[in-house]
Amino acid sequence: MIEKSKPSYQKLEELSKRAAIYTSISHILVWDQETKMPKEAIGLRTQQNELIASLIHKEQTSPEFAKTLGSLIDLETGDVLDPDLSPQKKAALREWRRDYLQAVKLPTEFVEEFAKVTSTATAAWQEARPKNDFKAFQPHLEKIIKLNQKKADFLGYEDHPYDALIDSFEPGMKTAELTTIFERLKIPLMNLLKKIQTKEDPDASFLQKDYPHDKQIAFSKQLLQDMGFEDSFSRLDESAHPMCIPIHPKDMRMTTRVYPNNVAVSILSCAHEGGHGLYHIHLPEEHFGTPLGESASLGIDESQSRTWETLIGRSLPFWEHYFPKLQKTFPDQLGSVHLEDFYKAINVVEPSMIRVDSDEVSYNLHVLLRFELEKALLEERLKPSDIPDAWNEKMREYLSITPKAHSEGSLQDIHWAMGAFGYFPTYTLGNLYAAQFFVAFAKDHPNWKQRVAKGELHFISDWQKEKIHRFGREFLPEDLCEKVTGSPLSEKPYIEYLKNKYTPLYHL
Amino acid sequence: MIEKSKPSYQKLEELSKRAAIYTSISHILVWDQETKMPKEAIGLRTQQNELIASLIHKEQTSPEFAKTLGSLIDLETGDVLDPDLSPQKKAALREWRRDYLQAVKLPTEFVEEFAKVTSTATAAWQEARPKNDFKAFQPHLEKIIKLNQKKADFLGYEDHPYDALIDSFEPGMKTAELTTIFERLKIPLMNLLKKIQTKEDPDASFLQKDYPHDKQIAFSKQLLQDMGFEDSFSRLDESAHPMCIPIHPKDMRMTTRVYPNNVAVSILSCAHEGGHGLYHIHLPEEHFGTPLGESASLGIDESQSRTWETLIGRSLPFWEHYFPKLQKTFPDQLGSVHLEDFYKAINVVEPSMIRVDSDEVSYNLHVLLRFELEKALLEERLKPSDIPDAWNEKMREYLSITPKAHSEGSLQDIHWAMGAFGYFPTYTLGNLYAAQFFVAFAKDHPNWKQRVAKGELHFISDWQKEKIHRFGREFLPEDLCEKVTGSPLSEKPYIEYLKNKYTPLYHL
Repeated sequence: MIEKSKPSYQKLEELSKRAAIYTSISHILVWDQETKMPKEAIGLRTQQNELIASLIHKEQTSPEFAKTLGSLIDLETGDVLDPDLSPQKKAALREWRRDYLQAVKLPTEFVEEFAKVTSTATAAWQEARPKNDFKAFQPHLEKIIKLNQKKADFLGYEDHPYDALIDSFEPGMKTAELTTIFERLKIPLMNLLKKIQTKEDPDASFLQKDYPHDKQIAFSKQLLQDMGFEDSFSRLDESAHPMCIPIHPKDMRMTTRVYPNNVAVSILSCAHEGGHGLYHIHLPEEHFGTPLGESASLGIDESQSRTWETLIGRSLPFWEHYFPKLQKTFPDQLGSVHLEDFYKAINVVEPSMIRVDSDEVSYNLHVLLRFELEKALLEERLKPSDIPDAWNEKMREYLSITPKAHSEGSLQDIHWAMGAFGYFPTYTLGNLYAAQFFVAFAKDHPNWKQRVAKGELHFISDWQKEKIHRFGREFLPEDLCEKVTGSPLSEKPYIEYLKNKYTPLYHL
Repeated sequence: MIEKSKPSYQKLEELSKRAAIYTSISHILVWDQETKMPKEAIGLRTQQNELIASLIHKEQTSPEFAKTLGSLIDLETGDVLDPDLSPQKKAALREWRRDYLQAVKLPTEFVEEFAKVTSTATAAWQEARPKNDFKAFQPHLEKIIKLNQKKADFLGYEDHPYDALIDSFEPGMKTAELTTIFERLKIPLMNLLKKIQTKEDPDASFLQKDYPHDKQIAFSKQLLQDMGFEDSFSRLDESAHPMCIPIHPKDMRMTTRVYPNNVAVSILSCAHEGGHGLYHIHLPEEHFGTPLGESASLGIDESQSRTWETLIGRSLPFWEHYFPKLQKTFPDQLGSVHLEDFYKAINVVEPSMIRVDSDEVSYNLHVLLRFELEKALLEERLKPSDIPDAWNEKMREYLSITPKAHSEGSLQDIHWAMGAFGYFPTYTLGNLYAAQFFVAFAKDHPNWKQRVAKGELHFISDWQKEKIHRFGREFLPEDLCEKVTGSPLSEKPYIEYLKNKYTPLYHL
């Protein structure tokens, strides 16, 4: 067995890479659909997507793959059979096993039913949202909850069905741990928010002027170039929602959405997608198609995008360098604005009904609300029909505002319609990881503010690459966090960061 | 057997459509590569292309497909087993059988070797061309000739190995027939060209002024819209070489290349690609993925593009409508130019070293030259090392010009490097079909000039759809020609067309 393990590992890599090439094709199709596809092509595109998805599933669960994997790692216990393999290869096997078990534990009929129900639900959601018709969406949500309960049962869990769901987005994370950390986060966030709300908001009206589309794009492209992206291996296009579609380290596709009258949102959302993109161009190309060539988790991935969007992108040093350039690009709109006022304006804290429009202080309270509702739905402590009331109650409690319509309430996000229970927490995990990593970064680069103010950015991404990106999925998120920061994940660095930032900003 | 043929036909359609969805994905990849892909992504793209190509081949030659096809048509004799099937379905079976036999007659190892050799040869050609280094390309060409001889042997033929090669591009066409028709074409073309060359060329210098890129694109897009293309099912992008990538009747992707100092070439090449595009948006959507949803042949496809590029696009009535618009778009460049002078300028006959830059009179002599050399190479009457001399000799004989470098001689086209022996003749066939179809069209629409001069174009594409497009591959090219025009293919309409056009233009 042991003699054969080396060629088997190579065989496993080959099989895994073949599945990854299919996945990369499906990513091209997604990118095309979001940015270029003529809209009447959707009928064919649906068939293309389904065919590729079934191919990927087939490759990932093939008897050949299972046999090869099983010759290297005990599929039952997770024990690596060849003790002489490098720690990196052992880690890769651990992750291959995780993916494989998740793929095979779900029966094909279940996967197909899940795809069908969520596809129908997504269409229903798209119709229901503009009409504020929660009742029309409710039966779909009911089915989706049942399916997620079933999914958790198929995948298996020890403590809580939600453990099984979150594990596919954030390997190793548990509901109990999330609950603890989110609870510790909630009160300080609410307190900070309440304090800020007693103060007057700075003027941000100049952000809402008319900022020509093409100049915004050109500015964002320049920023991405400064971050390290070149045309030879990346693109920036426009789509309804900004996203990063990481096809390959040498084919990174980011999109943005230009708000003609909100220049900061356009630029910072590019910084966000660029943060994801940097992670994926730094993943080791030789491990493409294996766990060592993938990002550690959605939460870790989000931490990299949030670092660039918020910790860097909403920082004063960043704009010391970029604001004069922005003024030069938009002299009529910003010529008479002071840097400090611009900095205050892009950091206004103002609870919004909409999660994606939210500031750094209130954003995570939106996520906590969703996490709590998802858990309650799975546990059947809450009925789907009670969602709107529960939603509004929590909005009042956490953010002191009440949605007037379902479109700005429980119908605002696509995630439930897509069946993605367990996804939302990764947004907040991203913020927490980002803040905790940033403390370590600032320790290594105590002069980061001066360097960023001079327009230097590469030393940041070099640090990220060295400490985080290059490992792929070698370490579980919690282990990576310990390795990078010396401590397990904690809410404290994030709260500290917010306090340090907003105390002077709002004269608290 | 007969009772089972109906469900079997449906089964065959399903299998065929699945392969077609893979093909449509490969077309998306091609489009992306030509228009959008970051250049460093080529490594992954090559792997994606290979994987999809092997999938398509597997689907098209699967035992299941063979069994289903064989239950409907005798694979040996081509006899349809159910006499009650509609003529359309019988035709589809005939074409499915043709494709299937072509696919299975070539052993997998041969297909792989062919792909490898031509891929290397294409890279070698790309290097050799700018260096004018025929010797560097010659060993690759030698291999490719041997492989094409082998290919012909695998496919089988009665009279001439070239028959086997051309059949995959132009079903049913024979070398003997091509030779006859091309010989009949050659002397009249050479004579007409010689006559024209005794006359003075009209002034065309205003075409070479600086025509801004974006305005050219906008004008071409408007033309495509006038031809019937809408954004909801089509796109126009830019690429190194203009092309039409017909993904689906509802997803038609055309590309153009803008020559900043040749406005006519940009617009007419869009008309050309639009001509292909119209064919493919008119193919019956319900037959997508079957022979009834594909164009009849490369020659017939080319006839539709050449109709729009030359018979319409280089006609006086067309510019009676469009020239005032072009003047309005480019007032500085064309404001003082008369319509008649513009018409003369875009129809200048001036033999070029380069096939793709050639006028309507000399273009086909370029094709004849290549056809004759290909035949001689296959028959081993000509050695690859003799190509440059043979090329130059024929250039002098047919066009009275001599290439000074291989890059404007035998290294100019990619076709041989790609292994595509038998492809070139379809360009001339396209011109011949186009002229012959156009006589029938003009009989049905004797007032076409007046209507085109008023800006009407849809009646042309309606006629094409009714007479040609909607049939897919139901009729073999030769039968389609008879059906549409009442006569077998002839060179006469094309010669007649050229004489009628150029006699007044050059006062012959």
